[in-house]
Amino acid sequence: MPPEYEHGNVNELRQDLVTGRWVIISTSRGKRPQEFRINEKIPPTPIADCPFEDPEGNGINGSAFRAYSKNGERTEKPDRSWVVQVIPNKFPILEDHDGICAEKITHGEYTSMPAIGRHEVIITRDHESDIADLPVEIDAILVRAWRDRMRDIAEDKCIAYILVFQNHGKEAGASVQHPHSQLIALPVVPPSVERSLAGSLEYQQTHNTCVHCAIIANEQKEGLRVIAETTGFIVLTPYAPHAPFEVRIFPKHHVHDFRTLTTMDIEELADVLKRALQMITVAIGHFSYNLFIHTSPVSAGDHSHYHWHVEILPKSSTHAGVEFGTGVLVLSVAPEDAAAHFKSKWR
Amino acid sequence: MPPEYEHGNVNELRQDLVTGRWVIISTSRGKRPQEFRINEKIPPTPIADCPFEDPEGNGINGSAFRAYSKNGERTEKPDRSWVVQVIPNKFPILEDHDGICAEKITHGEYTSMPAIGRHEVIITRDHESDIADLPVEIDAILVRAWRDRMRDIAEDKCIAYILVFQNHGKEAGASVQHPHSQLIALPVVPPSVERSLAGSLEYQQTHNTCVHCAIIANEQKEGLRVIAETTGFIVLTPYAPHAPFEVRIFPKHHVHDFRTLTTMDIEELADVLKRALQMITVAIGHFSYNLFIHTSPVSAGDHSHYHWHVEILPKSSTHAGVEFGTGVLVLSVAPEDAAAHFKSKWR
Repeated sequence: MPPEYEHGNVNELRQDLVTGRWVIISTSRGKRPQEFRINEKIPPTPIADCPFEDPEGNGINGSAFRAYSKNGERTEKPDRSWVVQVIPNKFPILEDHDGICAEKITHGEYTSMPAIGRHEVIITRDHESDIADLPVEIDAILVRAWRDRMRDIAEDKCIAYILVFQNHGKEAGASVQHPHSQLIALPVVPPSVERSLAGSLEYQQTHNTCVHCAIIANEQKEGLRVIAETTGFIVLTPYAPHAPFEVRIFPKHHVHDFRTLTTMDIEELADVLKRALQMITVAIGHFSYNLFIHTSPVSAGDHSHYHWHVEILPKSSTHAGVEFGTGVLVLSVAPEDAAAHFKSKWR
Repeated sequence: MPPEYEHGNVNELRQDLVTGRWVIISTSRGKRPQEFRINEKIPPTPIADCPFEDPEGNGINGSAFRAYSKNGERTEKPDRSWVVQVIPNKFPILEDHDGICAEKITHGEYTSMPAIGRHEVIITRDHESDIADLPVEIDAILVRAWRDRMRDIAEDKCIAYILVFQNHGKEAGASVQHPHSQLIALPVVPPSVERSLAGSLEYQQTHNTCVHCAIIANEQKEGLRVIAETTGFIVLTPYAPHAPFEVRIFPKHHVHDFRTLTTMDIEELADVLKRALQMITVAIGHFSYNLFIHTSPVSAGDHSHYHWHVEILPKSSTHAGVEFGTGVLVLSVAPEDAAAHFKSKWR
């Protein structure tokens, strides 16, 4: 080891404790966090072109799976009073089934299966206001819709894994600029989730504790990457991030499954989410981002070693040869610097 | 399994035989291959702004690791006659070392190591001509430079893995539009390579043959995804691609290590590479792309179960929530359709 090796002095390879994945922190090439500010707001899709706007104001298309009114009440048939609605994705990547589960099929050397599952869109009524801008009461209804649909869909024995995510802004892959999140339900546990689960299980078996709980304790002790704590949640930048300025939100108590969220949890999470996204906007401007709810699979088996959490990945760089060719992500901002920058903007 | 399940009828989940990774073929949302044509050529960086151009024409900066003249001869000190040159990357993500290997360091729960290794750029003299446009003799010198630098760097006992890749065009992450490829040498075997190696080893142990050889045999038998064959190489679209229109080139005989390429292999590969990239341009226009040489690690251990190959990933879509959240890639074009479209353009 060269004697001059110190944080910030040379580039650093860091290993993710859960997945074993390496990233490279390479700040020499990058800008300082302050220089990342992009001030322009992402322009919304013109109302006339927005598939989530409806001149009659009666909800989208009559095919909502769930709809919620302002007081958080569920309605079966959305009327004018809806604030959050869950509708089918018009171009689903996973398609509905008639009660017959997908089975693996062998073609020569290969394996396939019909891409059966679900692909839904969760929309909030306001055409422009995102989680950061909406009243926290509406954000809470949105979080509740995520939980409720996860609960509903978990009943389907054909489903192994459910992901709720949001693509915000064109650079993050959103084709419509009316705030919306998505839910996909897969008949298999996807590869990157399998990897995290394997890492989480291995740590549990070796250390007799949850790997994410160990990370939280480590972060609280070190303090370098903690942005904020509330009663139930901790907001931090991860040691080996997947994007510069990535923010993760963990429940401080060990809970593996997002479906177990209580109304109180939901209210607190909505508040933390709103504040985290506001903080990111103040700190680095109106970035496109991907947001994920990472939770345990709904397939059979003991997944209690997992620990659900939120990942927010502001989009500031393109993956290229290094990332696609090796799986090693290159980060131009150290998470310690991002955390320090964010911390001063947390309200 | 629903009775209507047939290729093209519903979306399809396909599993990669080597990595176990799932992709979704979702053509309902996508365009037909013919509609993907983008005709505009990627504009080159203005010569005055190009770091790879040199008014004296004496080579770049005197710090070339290797330089080759038109007749393929290596020169230690590049002079006016150079056609291919290997130079240091100005902003290396992995940095040179003084003979002291990187060691893993523990910080609380975490592991890091100095990002020691190599990051080099391989440039061809012509400011605009890419592999598709250059004379095949120059392409052969380029391929030879890749092999030679792999051989040189493999001598370094601190290095575990070497990747040669090319980012072509801005969308593929190239910041300079003067054709150049890159080489990174890492002190660890990166995660996605580890995964492929594990899959390759497992198949070898179970089936007593190389997984890539089995894939080649399967493809030759089925014929659906084979674009072309030469004496030594097969050009195909993979069953579970990483991008619409991905093209892979395999040596037909089992060879695990790119470093073993002979001069004859190099000449044939240069010809196949040029024809493959010309074919892609004719078929889908001047796409940005990432190109990879996937070869076995140079670290200790028996990696002879691996099978080196080239991957060409034309850039036509942005990874978003589904891809980043699950690792499942969504493909809007089936590789069978891409292969059929490509086949008619192969010359």
